[in-house]
Amino acid sequence: MRVFSKAQIVAHFNPELAVSQLEEGFIAYSEGKVQVPPVQGFAFKGANGDCCVKSAYIEGSPTFTVKLSTGFYDNPSKGLPSNDGLMLVLSAHTGQPLALLQDQGWLTAMRTALAGRIAARLLAPSQVKAIGILGTGMQAQMQLEQLRAVTDCRQVIVWGRHERGLAAYTAFARELGFAVHSTQDAAEVAGAANLIVCTTPSRQALLHSDWVQPGTHITAVGADAPGKQELDPALVARADRIIVDAIAQCSQYGEVAHALGCGRIDANQLIELGTLLAGRAKGREHDSQITLADLTGVAVQDAQVASHALAALCT
Amino acid sequence: MRVFSKAQIVAHFNPELAVSQLEEGFIAYSEGKVQVPPVQGFAFKGANGDCCVKSAYIEGSPTFTVKLSTGFYDNPSKGLPSNDGLMLVLSAHTGQPLALLQDQGWLTAMRTALAGRIAARLLAPSQVKAIGILGTGMQAQMQLEQLRAVTDCRQVIVWGRHERGLAAYTAFARELGFAVHSTQDAAEVAGAANLIVCTTPSRQALLHSDWVQPGTHITAVGADAPGKQELDPALVARADRIIVDAIAQCSQYGEVAHALGCGRIDANQLIELGTLLAGRAKGREHDSQITLADLTGVAVQDAQVASHALAALCT
Repeated sequence: MRVFSKAQIVAHFNPELAVSQLEEGFIAYSEGKVQVPPVQGFAFKGANGDCCVKSAYIEGSPTFTVKLSTGFYDNPSKGLPSNDGLMLVLSAHTGQPLALLQDQGWLTAMRTALAGRIAARLLAPSQVKAIGILGTGMQAQMQLEQLRAVTDCRQVIVWGRHERGLAAYTAFARELGFAVHSTQDAAEVAGAANLIVCTTPSRQALLHSDWVQPGTHITAVGADAPGKQELDPALVARADRIIVDAIAQCSQYGEVAHALGCGRIDANQLIELGTLLAGRAKGREHDSQITLADLTGVAVQDAQVASHALAALCT
Repeated sequence: MRVFSKAQIVAHFNPELAVSQLEEGFIAYSEGKVQVPPVQGFAFKGANGDCCVKSAYIEGSPTFTVKLSTGFYDNPSKGLPSNDGLMLVLSAHTGQPLALLQDQGWLTAMRTALAGRIAARLLAPSQVKAIGILGTGMQAQMQLEQLRAVTDCRQVIVWGRHERGLAAYTAFARELGFAVHSTQDAAEVAGAANLIVCTTPSRQALLHSDWVQPGTHITAVGADAPGKQELDPALVARADRIIVDAIAQCSQYGEVAHALGCGRIDANQLIELGTLLAGRAKGREHDSQITLADLTGVAVQDAQVASHALAALCT
């Protein structure tokens, strides 16, 4: 088995190739061609941590992938990052472990950002006035980086709870070539931006329906586990198109689960990203529609991003 | 993260210490103190293979474990072993991956053999006339090796389908100090032995109720996935004590699931090994009872055997 470090993985990673593989993965998933066993989850209450194991095999692929990701939220006080993780790639022909990708969670963050990019490419309004970002962390950064490939807009308005996070994000976004406005008022983001990405681990709605302008596309990636929520269920209900990465998973948690739970939407309104990518469902039809992509993260993304990373490392 | 090879793991492994940790693990499991997320299973039909991911965390333990095991049954024709696997040990305090145990399935085989040893210690009749083994593979060997610690009996009768396997097993068992009789008639095993271990991947009953003598203890470890079966459900029903490693899992597959499925036994007859080990249930009461241990393999065993292996490697 070959072992690769995060530095090696990052150095060889090609987002353009990876995004194509991710799109193929979403399509295969929505066509029922992916084995996705149940997610394994652990809670470490005393340590304020959790771990999940996500595994996937795309039928006919030469490999399959098992991914571990951990979040231990008191780690920063110990000088350690909150998130860690790794991926194992095994042969689907012989079962042999082929590679250990010690990406420390970077590939998970990247595949999430690339899914946001895919959603924005398919669903953003034709004229993006400003990009709105909720959150100032690593995922907030990676989403903005990836959006540059699908929009010419270089205006960003970022929301965060703390001045320090906002200042760091402002410096980061300026470095990328963006004109930046930062705020601690999420309503201001909704007033200025018509392409909004929500990246926080919030457990209550941050973005309210009244604030959002017609024509806005919203991608929500924060609510990746039960209990998490970034959007007002009324906003979910107001969306003209509700795209999800996986109907099965988004019915259990994510923004859509909250709106389903309180009866604001019906399960038959949900369209999978893979169905949209395959051209078997309609996305945005005009620039006054509100569209939503609720992305909870599916193991097929891990399998595809690991497959790309390994191919890139070995060529 | 430290990486250890199978050779290193085998060289440092101490079955006496491991068996104690396994017993503690079974007890904790039966007391509801173990997080055991759902098993992840893959089927690779074209390649005649499967993979399962079993993970466990014993509340309060400093580590948790994720185990992958694969079985690709056409591998021998490619010069590869059928089974492979590895274990990952992570910190339950920080989530950091601590060790990769590249045991190639050896630890899984060992924890299965040690569970058989535990069951025999608790349930075998006071006088073992002969040990009966069904199967001639690696697990058949490891079970016999481990039984030496819990019985003085050095008579073994082994059943297999093929002369070559029987000849190899005979040589192996003689080397261990056993007087060996081999047969292709499973009834002969039941007639001669009163401590029988079934280790085959059979999909139909090999051991029939009529053949088995009063006083016999049977440990069945082969039926570790749906569809597999080694025992006549009438034999399961005839047992005076039915011990299982995990009621939840043995209700889904294993010998007990077949007997439950055809209504031959009732779920309230099942006793977990951990409950027996904790002294909260009765085992064998006299030498004419038939006892059965149906061991399908639980992730807590993997967590405990990995924990022992890692401690042994690091001291």
